[in-house]
Amino acid sequence: MEKNSVGLVETKYFNFDELVLDSKEHLKQVTIAYEIYGQLNEKKSNAILIEHALTGDAHAAGFHKDEDKSGWWDTMIGPGKAFDTKKYFVICSNVIGGCKGSTGPSSVNPKTGKPYGLDFPIITVADMVRAQKKLIDYLGIKKLLTVVGGSMGGMQVLQWLVSYPESVKSLIPIATTVKHSPQQIAFSEVGRQAVMSDPDWRDGNYYGVSFPTRGLSVARMIGHITYMSDVSMAEKFGRRSKEKKPIFKFEPSFEVEGYLKYRGDSFVKRFDANSYLYITKALDLFDLVGEKKLHQVFNGLKAKLLILSFKSDWLYPSYQSKEIVKACKLAGADATYCEIDSTYGHDAFLLEVDEETHLIKHFLERVSNV
Amino acid sequence: MEKNSVGLVETKYFNFDELVLDSKEHLKQVTIAYEIYGQLNEKKSNAILIEHALTGDAHAAGFHKDEDKSGWWDTMIGPGKAFDTKKYFVICSNVIGGCKGSTGPSSVNPKTGKPYGLDFPIITVADMVRAQKKLIDYLGIKKLLTVVGGSMGGMQVLQWLVSYPESVKSLIPIATTVKHSPQQIAFSEVGRQAVMSDPDWRDGNYYGVSFPTRGLSVARMIGHITYMSDVSMAEKFGRRSKEKKPIFKFEPSFEVEGYLKYRGDSFVKRFDANSYLYITKALDLFDLVGEKKLHQVFNGLKAKLLILSFKSDWLYPSYQSKEIVKACKLAGADATYCEIDSTYGHDAFLLEVDEETHLIKHFLERVSNV
Repeated sequence: MEKNSVGLVETKYFNFDELVLDSKEHLKQVTIAYEIYGQLNEKKSNAILIEHALTGDAHAAGFHKDEDKSGWWDTMIGPGKAFDTKKYFVICSNVIGGCKGSTGPSSVNPKTGKPYGLDFPIITVADMVRAQKKLIDYLGIKKLLTVVGGSMGGMQVLQWLVSYPESVKSLIPIATTVKHSPQQIAFSEVGRQAVMSDPDWRDGNYYGVSFPTRGLSVARMIGHITYMSDVSMAEKFGRRSKEKKPIFKFEPSFEVEGYLKYRGDSFVKRFDANSYLYITKALDLFDLVGEKKLHQVFNGLKAKLLILSFKSDWLYPSYQSKEIVKACKLAGADATYCEIDSTYGHDAFLLEVDEETHLIKHFLERVSNV
Repeated sequence: MEKNSVGLVETKYFNFDELVLDSKEHLKQVTIAYEIYGQLNEKKSNAILIEHALTGDAHAAGFHKDEDKSGWWDTMIGPGKAFDTKKYFVICSNVIGGCKGSTGPSSVNPKTGKPYGLDFPIITVADMVRAQKKLIDYLGIKKLLTVVGGSMGGMQVLQWLVSYPESVKSLIPIATTVKHSPQQIAFSEVGRQAVMSDPDWRDGNYYGVSFPTRGLSVARMIGHITYMSDVSMAEKFGRRSKEKKPIFKFEPSFEVEGYLKYRGDSFVKRFDANSYLYITKALDLFDLVGEKKLHQVFNGLKAKLLILSFKSDWLYPSYQSKEIVKACKLAGADATYCEIDSTYGHDAFLLEVDEETHLIKHFLERVSNV
């Protein structure tokens, strides 16, 4: 274990009776899986909420017992790191609709005693945040020092600003948008169509019977193309072929093909297909302000913002972050923006650790001292 | 029928005994479907070969009897148009491996009396061009005035230059590349995986039994995203939803979703799934010069080139066309390049008719007069 790891950690579970959703449906017997790192100070003023992306989970840092792999943002969370656990109390929870301990379509429906499947209600990013607010209340925190996340995590960050502006001292939305463009919806939709066209999906009632392995794998492959950039793919794979001749003529032969297949195949072992449908739908439905002008949500905002995007990210291109920056400026909000010059594409928010660390450390010092 | 149409046309069929492929396999009893428009002059010096893209066919212009829809490049071919049939003799043929009249995996294998399926040999872009050369020979044409095409059509154009440099007076590669990048391979591969993961694909032996409708539809949806641009999608669909509430919660509700579904569903009625596999594989395998330096193929070239690309095309980005231009310049070849300022993405080569017409008309006049 490396020196600056938060070490052994455990996922905890917070249960509550009911969550009233945007759809007006009442989700009953809700569980939120979460992890905490560092110590909450006496004033309860040093809490940071980390928001995960589409297929993330509550396990953001450290190690689980008997597991080698560290949490998904371990490079950023720990003693001396960007989210310094010697200073800050860091929380990460799994979104509702997910499949990593929080209530989602694979959970048991208390009404029927069987997994929800498609009886699970449509959830929104606002619903995810609504559930997190209950967790934060339960932890006794009135105001979060910051809420931070990339991609879908960034949408949740922005939703905190709209839903609970008094509960956040600062916000760090990374590589995100206030609403999906039709191109982003299109990529989500093709992924969903791949899942739903798999006969093993069975209209979502596959639990204990089958699993739409092939469809979900194709969906993930599409996703991976959009997470990388043309340049990062060229650098990583070029046009290299595997040495071995393909046995079957349409077997993957280029390295990039083998990589995508591997990513698809490993994903289906760890993620629920219905959760993929529900969460991507929540992304597509997300529209921070609807018909309102974007700058109106930033009027009178006291929270400070650090907005980050990445030059080669074509899934959540910088122009979408710049729209947020412009709206902040129009509203006179305190916003700092940086476009990081990375070739990693959308994945950069997980990989450009050094640049992000510098920017975030300074930002957190500034907001902590106010 | 509009005034400048070539009018009623018919697909013709040219048969020959054998085509020796890059794979060293001998394809027997080969048919090439083709159409011709305009008149071949006495000197046989006015012939233009049109190359189609991935899912195109020989029917490039005019109308078939009892059909409303004109050929796929009707806007460019006809009296007074870019490829003016009053002046030029225009030929378009379906590629081998295709499913529009030329021999492909859905054709009957003379050895077995049954459709080839995956017994069809792997074909390359060079094989496609090899078959076209036989057609051109059969038509008695020694030298083509020009060979022109977009996307995969452009690859065939470039292949003519390498395979038969003495048989072309000029070349117009549009929105194309000398080799697929890993990102382009990745998009092809995900499409193939979608087809092959459909149980109705049955390892390619589905003829007369089933059809991988769902898989091929997903493949086509992925394709359509890459053919458009972020901007053209935003202009065409925005975030508009269909008025009707979706009956089923993951039914397409945004207009862009409905559009993709429609394009997927209509595609499977007109295209063979195995042809999709073979032709996309040919695209991925295409590598004009391999280990050689690109400019070496242009050394001593007498043919003139007009190279076109489109600003918003992110599937075949302009930098790939610029590599060709640079190589031409290094070799002292006569090349003109234009990046057309379009928002249509890759589809622009079918849509930016006015700009293309101006550029191509002038170019053809110049090369005709040499």
